[in-house]
Amino acid sequence: MNDRPAAVVLAEWAAGLTYEDLPADVVAAARDHLIDAAGCAVAGIRRAAADPALTVARGLGGPPEARLFTGERVGAVAAAFGNAVAVHALDFDDTHAGGLVHASAVCVPTALALGEQTGARGSEMVTALVAGLEVMCRLGGAAPHAFHARGLHATSMCGPVAAAVTAGKLLGLDAAALTDAIGIAASGASGLLEFLHSPASTKQLHPGTAAANGIIAARLAAAGASGPDSSLDGSYGLFRALAGREPDVGALLGELGERWETTRIGIKPYPACQLTHASIDAAGEFAGSAPASLTVTLHPDAMPIVAGPEKRRPRSAYEAKFSVYWCVAAMVVDGWVDLDTFTDLDRPDVLDLASRITVVLSPDRSVVAADAPGIVAGDDGRVSRVERSTGGGARTKAAANLGPGAGAVFAADDPAALLDAIEGCLT
Amino acid sequence: MNDRPAAVVLAEWAAGLTYEDLPADVVAAARDHLIDAAGCAVAGIRRAAADPALTVARGLGGPPEARLFTGERVGAVAAAFGNAVAVHALDFDDTHAGGLVHASAVCVPTALALGEQTGARGSEMVTALVAGLEVMCRLGGAAPHAFHARGLHATSMCGPVAAAVTAGKLLGLDAAALTDAIGIAASGASGLLEFLHSPASTKQLHPGTAAANGIIAARLAAAGASGPDSSLDGSYGLFRALAGREPDVGALLGELGERWETTRIGIKPYPACQLTHASIDAAGEFAGSAPASLTVTLHPDAMPIVAGPEKRRPRSAYEAKFSVYWCVAAMVVDGWVDLDTFTDLDRPDVLDLASRITVVLSPDRSVVAADAPGIVAGDDGRVSRVERSTGGGARTKAAANLGPGAGAVFAADDPAALLDAIEGCLT
Repeated sequence: MNDRPAAVVLAEWAAGLTYEDLPADVVAAARDHLIDAAGCAVAGIRRAAADPALTVARGLGGPPEARLFTGERVGAVAAAFGNAVAVHALDFDDTHAGGLVHASAVCVPTALALGEQTGARGSEMVTALVAGLEVMCRLGGAAPHAFHARGLHATSMCGPVAAAVTAGKLLGLDAAALTDAIGIAASGASGLLEFLHSPASTKQLHPGTAAANGIIAARLAAAGASGPDSSLDGSYGLFRALAGREPDVGALLGELGERWETTRIGIKPYPACQLTHASIDAAGEFAGSAPASLTVTLHPDAMPIVAGPEKRRPRSAYEAKFSVYWCVAAMVVDGWVDLDTFTDLDRPDVLDLASRITVVLSPDRSVVAADAPGIVAGDDGRVSRVERSTGGGARTKAAANLGPGAGAVFAADDPAALLDAIEGCLT
Repeated sequence: MNDRPAAVVLAEWAAGLTYEDLPADVVAAARDHLIDAAGCAVAGIRRAAADPALTVARGLGGPPEARLFTGERVGAVAAAFGNAVAVHALDFDDTHAGGLVHASAVCVPTALALGEQTGARGSEMVTALVAGLEVMCRLGGAAPHAFHARGLHATSMCGPVAAAVTAGKLLGLDAAALTDAIGIAASGASGLLEFLHSPASTKQLHPGTAAANGIIAARLAAAGASGPDSSLDGSYGLFRALAGREPDVGALLGELGERWETTRIGIKPYPACQLTHASIDAAGEFAGSAPASLTVTLHPDAMPIVAGPEKRRPRSAYEAKFSVYWCVAAMVVDGWVDLDTFTDLDRPDVLDLASRITVVLSPDRSVVAADAPGIVAGDDGRVSRVERSTGGGARTKAAANLGPGAGAVFAADDPAALLDAIEGCLT
């Protein structure tokens, strides 16, 4: 297997994947991710966090192939673009810890848009979604932290290929055309981490660009354009050119159809960067107390992303979501972290505690950063250690965002019914 | 000036640029590039080289804001996407040697699409085009060969920002919004050089993706999305993240409005990679002779792009255009290199001579690769040296591609009239 280009192996596997191949827990996880993504989008739309992208998507227009979550019918590319930004707009959507990628933000809107365009059955949409999720998580996991270390956003580096796989499945591409689609999509990998140094909103936009470029790649392949077989593992392929390293072949291609990454995508309990979650969990131990100072232990790879010095006083909701200082301090002061944690950043109590947090680096690099334990120590000698953020409560969380219409969302089993139900939740 | 972020400096300059600021030779060069790009697109469309992209652009549809060169009205993003691929489809379009970027392939379709969408006058379109061309060439020239050394395509790395500037000018963005547009567009920089190892068609697609992502960035900024001020020169900005080096500040920002890169964009005499041109010129000295062997001297940075071992027997027209062996051999055998040089690759005479060409590296790295002299030596001791490929003959070349309607193209002075004239050339 390893002598063949990775794009060919993935394309053959994805092209051949059927609903019957999916274990029950994978189907259940895929449905959870669909519903959680919808809930995140509804929350994002209600809080106006995706407005510029939705405005642009409406402006792109196009044949009425698919719907934005807000109900307008536009071209499938425009719908996936706007919806992907909506899902990611509050950074409350799911994350695969091993690959540090927001898989559903890219793949769910793509599956919904192409599912609606092609009139797919629910089972076909779920199969295409799983193919995309698997490819996305495996791409991220084949070079964990490497894209981030270069200053690149793994979600939008891996997203176009995953979107091309999901879209290509729903367009009925065979393995050869899907290889071309992957090859073209790899050339659409983009997205800088410079947002970490700024209050700017580019991060939210990245899943939209990834979904759009991936769908266009699949359409180009369907129309006869070609992409290199070696787009992933070639010397100028996705990994060497953009991550500066070879992919881990086992992580990328091993146990296809046996090991399912879809079941390992974590649904977020907090609308903040995944790298803060275990610390927030551990900080819960100190909730309601008034520590003079706190020491937070972080994985070294998390440091530049969530603990830079500018993060002690976040300038935007997004900076606060990427500030371990803010998130930990809010958990201690309020006893909870949710969407309202990031609406008012002018809180002397939280800022005061944030200024008294020291971050130290864990010497243990044996796990990926998002799986590292959360360790928070107080000045009284108390140490709170949480082995792994548990997430959980997906349906509860989605239901809270979706409001009274949530029942219809849970009952929906095809793209059109799901979108109808989501629209219902917005009104 | 250097203390301020590059995106801010470029945005302020571009936002303030007026037609009256443009020297006459800059206006003349911009018009030449418009017409040359149109000629390249017409040739590409006639030879069906852009068909998949045009199919996808038609499928994207959208409000009838702008026209594809083939005449259909679609959304401006779709029009720019399809037209940009058409301009670049034969690799006959212009190149800025210092930045190794195909500036007009990205900026001309963007200027035409947004010009038509907004009903701009010809002078406004030319001003926006020049702003984009200047930014694109300066971005490429601020890190010459550095994107390529990473395995990334400089045209599509620099293209989204340039397209955002051109589009933003025509949308009337002020300097602050244009800074946001640049910040968003930098996160759309994508495009792998893996096509060099494959007969695949991704290179042709890159200007289309760049134009589309750039226009979307400008629209997002107009709708209120923000991008980092530090998108270009920040530690996770375009240069450090994707080229692995700091930008040359002088090349990027020096003498804005005084030094005009638009006049230094070379119009191609041959539909092949710019890096082969000086060698082709030098090979002209041997045309019609039957050398037993030839030695071609190449700049070291050109070697991996046009002289890899697989290039001795190209598998596609595109590989032949990126083969110094094929291009030099064809010039010696035929006495010319044009579009027909790349239609039949099963030519024993050309392949035989190609197999007897030795490439040696020039020790001189003081110039950029595309400006290096062409040196071809024969087995008889004759050495042909051409200091710099001259290009030239833009209007002649464009007229040949445009056919009998060329007069109307040359006379057109607004986007709509130009597009009408180009359409006329296709019928």
